[in-house]
Amino acid sequence: MLVVAGLGLYGTRDIPLGVLELLREADVIYLESYTSLAPSLNKEALEKLCGREVKEVKREDLEERSARELLAEAAERVVVLLTVGNPLLATTHTAIILEAKKRGIPFLIIPSASVIDGVICATGLHIYRFGRVVTLAFPDEERGFFPYSTYFAVKSNMSRGLHTLVLLDIRVEEGRYMDPRCAAQLLLKLESMLSEDVLGENTLVIVVARATAPDQYVKVCTLDEAAQKDFGQPPFSMVIPGLLHATEIEYLHHVHSAPLEVMLRWNMHVKKRFSSTLEV
Amino acid sequence: MLVVAGLGLYGTRDIPLGVLELLREADVIYLESYTSLAPSLNKEALEKLCGREVKEVKREDLEERSARELLAEAAERVVVLLTVGNPLLATTHTAIILEAKKRGIPFLIIPSASVIDGVICATGLHIYRFGRVVTLAFPDEERGFFPYSTYFAVKSNMSRGLHTLVLLDIRVEEGRYMDPRCAAQLLLKLESMLSEDVLGENTLVIVVARATAPDQYVKVCTLDEAAQKDFGQPPFSMVIPGLLHATEIEYLHHVHSAPLEVMLRWNMHVKKRFSSTLEV
Repeated sequence: MLVVAGLGLYGTRDIPLGVLELLREADVIYLESYTSLAPSLNKEALEKLCGREVKEVKREDLEERSARELLAEAAERVVVLLTVGNPLLATTHTAIILEAKKRGIPFLIIPSASVIDGVICATGLHIYRFGRVVTLAFPDEERGFFPYSTYFAVKSNMSRGLHTLVLLDIRVEEGRYMDPRCAAQLLLKLESMLSEDVLGENTLVIVVARATAPDQYVKVCTLDEAAQKDFGQPPFSMVIPGLLHATEIEYLHHVHSAPLEVMLRWNMHVKKRFSSTLEV
Repeated sequence: MLVVAGLGLYGTRDIPLGVLELLREADVIYLESYTSLAPSLNKEALEKLCGREVKEVKREDLEERSARELLAEAAERVVVLLTVGNPLLATTHTAIILEAKKRGIPFLIIPSASVIDGVICATGLHIYRFGRVVTLAFPDEERGFFPYSTYFAVKSNMSRGLHTLVLLDIRVEEGRYMDPRCAAQLLLKLESMLSEDVLGENTLVIVVARATAPDQYVKVCTLDEAAQKDFGQPPFSMVIPGLLHATEIEYLHHVHSAPLEVMLRWNMHVKKRFSSTLEV
């Protein structure tokens, strides 16, 4: 049997009880930690908790050829593949489940809190006011790749008055984690390349560093301020708000010290810029 | 101190370890179960697990006047408010945190899997292909209330090629849980009232019953089929897909026995109907 289970966002704090029980009975435990990052996750603490060895897997262990070995093992024994956050948010994990199904290997998926839950818990924003979630990828200037589609997705959400949750690129194997400063600079660069008047130095952003961790940090600021600030250790996310609801403004103001006038000015800007297409 | 913590989706299986630790040390434990429903959640099992009394709270205990009593208690002692799913997905909980902050009461928010995680884990759909999440509310025909805005949100998502996660109304206190049959009938009624050619008997829907539970049931069918079928016990969700990605089609076909030709025909319909506005 193949179990794909979520560990939550922070570390052992967020592991669901049922996952811990499964780990204590599993034959083999793999930990996949290249698609996400949990700030306090530690292989040794995990091993102590479940009383057995945990093997870390890299990208090449889960893709194509090498995934076959994991599946061959799961055909004979109980194999648990642990992931940070929601186990099916990464398409790699969906592909492995699909492959298990095709081979007739029984599988089980156990959920845990995802980055979306973390951002909602950190910011107090309303889930109903978010549009499509996007990832901001590192550009590859040599190959002429820039994350243009992210820019247009932000535009489309904003034109409807909806917030955009921007996930920032993580390349664990290269030791690269896009931080909000880099993200803000990249977004401003995209604006200068595409000139659709979506983003600017005064664009409001809500930066979330280490969502739900004890040292969680949430900052409501302009894109220009974000482009110059150090937000500490990863993981990070960024929200580019659409229209902020009165209760969201109140929460951000009281809980995260966001200046009221800045948020009200932002709402006026969005209304003026997109008056004909707003939905909220 | 006020702790607002998520219990996950199913029952004790999904409780995060850190929440269990907090429960064992808390002075008072409240369980809020009117905004959501976890199929195997059981107050007695929870009490046994944390070794102390758990008090159930109703809507009136958490809103306005009565929330003050809970906050007054939290000013003196450690009060844990347990919620099903993500603790801040319900605006009631956000309002309580805000009130705690205003009164200088320390608070802590611990995440757990939300209904969104459950639907992703159940269906294998890609998070990036979802638009805005909506709730389909029970109409109040006497007062002339119909959930029109839900219909237009589905239209807007679909016109961009994006999926809509439709949460179905829950009124625990009245013992009313909107089931997919009722939801499908209501959506067809909205179409007949608004006539914007968004939904019809052949509209594809993905019904999710008891997401991530051992008896989870996922069915890809037409709105007409959903309007006639009994999907068993709650909780339920429904996805109205936009354009399905090739890997989503493959997953739904192999894992949930969805007919390929039905999904391909759906994609052609969406492309034809919304060709000028699609984004994915």
